[in-house]
Amino acid sequence: MGFEDDKKRTLINLELAIRENLVDKDIIPILEKINSLENYYTTSSCIGRVGIMEIPKDKNPKLYSKWLGKWHHYATYEEMFNALKNISNGKNYIIFVMNSPILHIASKDIDSAKKMLELAIHSGLKSSSIKSISKKRIIVEILTTYKVDTPIGEDGKIFVDNNYLKFLLDYSNSKLKRAREIFMRWVNNLDKLK
Amino acid sequence: MGFEDDKKRTLINLELAIRENLVDKDIIPILEKINSLENYYTTSSCIGRVGIMEIPKDKNPKLYSKWLGKWHHYATYEEMFNALKNISNGKNYIIFVMNSPILHIASKDIDSAKKMLELAIHSGLKSSSIKSISKKRIIVEILTTYKVDTPIGEDGKIFVDNNYLKFLLDYSNSKLKRAREIFMRWVNNLDKLK
Repeated sequence: MGFEDDKKRTLINLELAIRENLVDKDIIPILEKINSLENYYTTSSCIGRVGIMEIPKDKNPKLYSKWLGKWHHYATYEEMFNALKNISNGKNYIIFVMNSPILHIASKDIDSAKKMLELAIHSGLKSSSIKSISKKRIIVEILTTYKVDTPIGEDGKIFVDNNYLKFLLDYSNSKLKRAREIFMRWVNNLDKLK
Repeated sequence: MGFEDDKKRTLINLELAIRENLVDKDIIPILEKINSLENYYTTSSCIGRVGIMEIPKDKNPKLYSKWLGKWHHYATYEEMFNALKNISNGKNYIIFVMNSPILHIASKDIDSAKKMLELAIHSGLKSSSIKSISKKRIIVEILTTYKVDTPIGEDGKIFVDNNYLKFLLDYSNSKLKRAREIFMRWVNNLDKLK
């Protein structure tokens, strides 16, 4: 099984995932653009999000972390405050996050990976990098530097007031918007790889 | 000029920087361990830190951002509150950050970069990656997933109370400590690359 076979198989799985509404709708045309390039295909993607998580202190965070709320659109104050009603009483940290758009792109060889990485960096996606190298493919991660990681409370209690939470949401939404603008600048530059 | 010449030149500059106290003291033995490996040398490093920044809203953040306080040791409440006395009145975001330890390692070729990257990932430094590829060298970035990026106010005003700031500092110091433990696990595994 070579790169082309892996690409075909991955694109069939992507098609199924799209039909089941498992892929962010806004990112689908971007995935199609990348997958139309000969030496590349996408393996995972997220258009960026704001959310609030409970992360357990004394259990495996990978297995037991829980989203109180998670929004790919620009969430409203009401959505945020509704999510905070679901806080549990366990031994948790409560973390407010903004994750920038992210894409993983399989590249055929080192040269194509290098070209994709450099285009991303030059387009302003400065946290982009190569995540893994194998004989079959090189994975390039496309990522901005924008992020929010804010502990807002623990053990079922919030340590900040509602005005601060509104500020935090406004700040995070504005950074998410900016991250998406830079992301789209890179998408528009992708034609240079044809 | 090949890899070996670049390595020699970089190590001379490192020696000078150490003599001028420009390098975190705790990281020096780690740099020496990496630089003793044939196919690698370090190009930049930080042992991790907690700090508070003013980031201008309407000027270039790269040129005009300012640290109110920055600590490579585990800062005390007093140090934090003293730093916050220096807030200015400009149009700024005030951001509290914890940056994990970070290292940039020049590797001789793709194969040595891949080995270094995989050792870092397997040691738990899951945000490690390859940042650039050139004929002369491949730069591997060594990094944990731990981070704090919290806007705490804007335009000269803090929107959280002192108890929250104490919680935020304790949280950040504990994550920095954990990040350093994982970092040292990788340092101890470096002998496998000999």
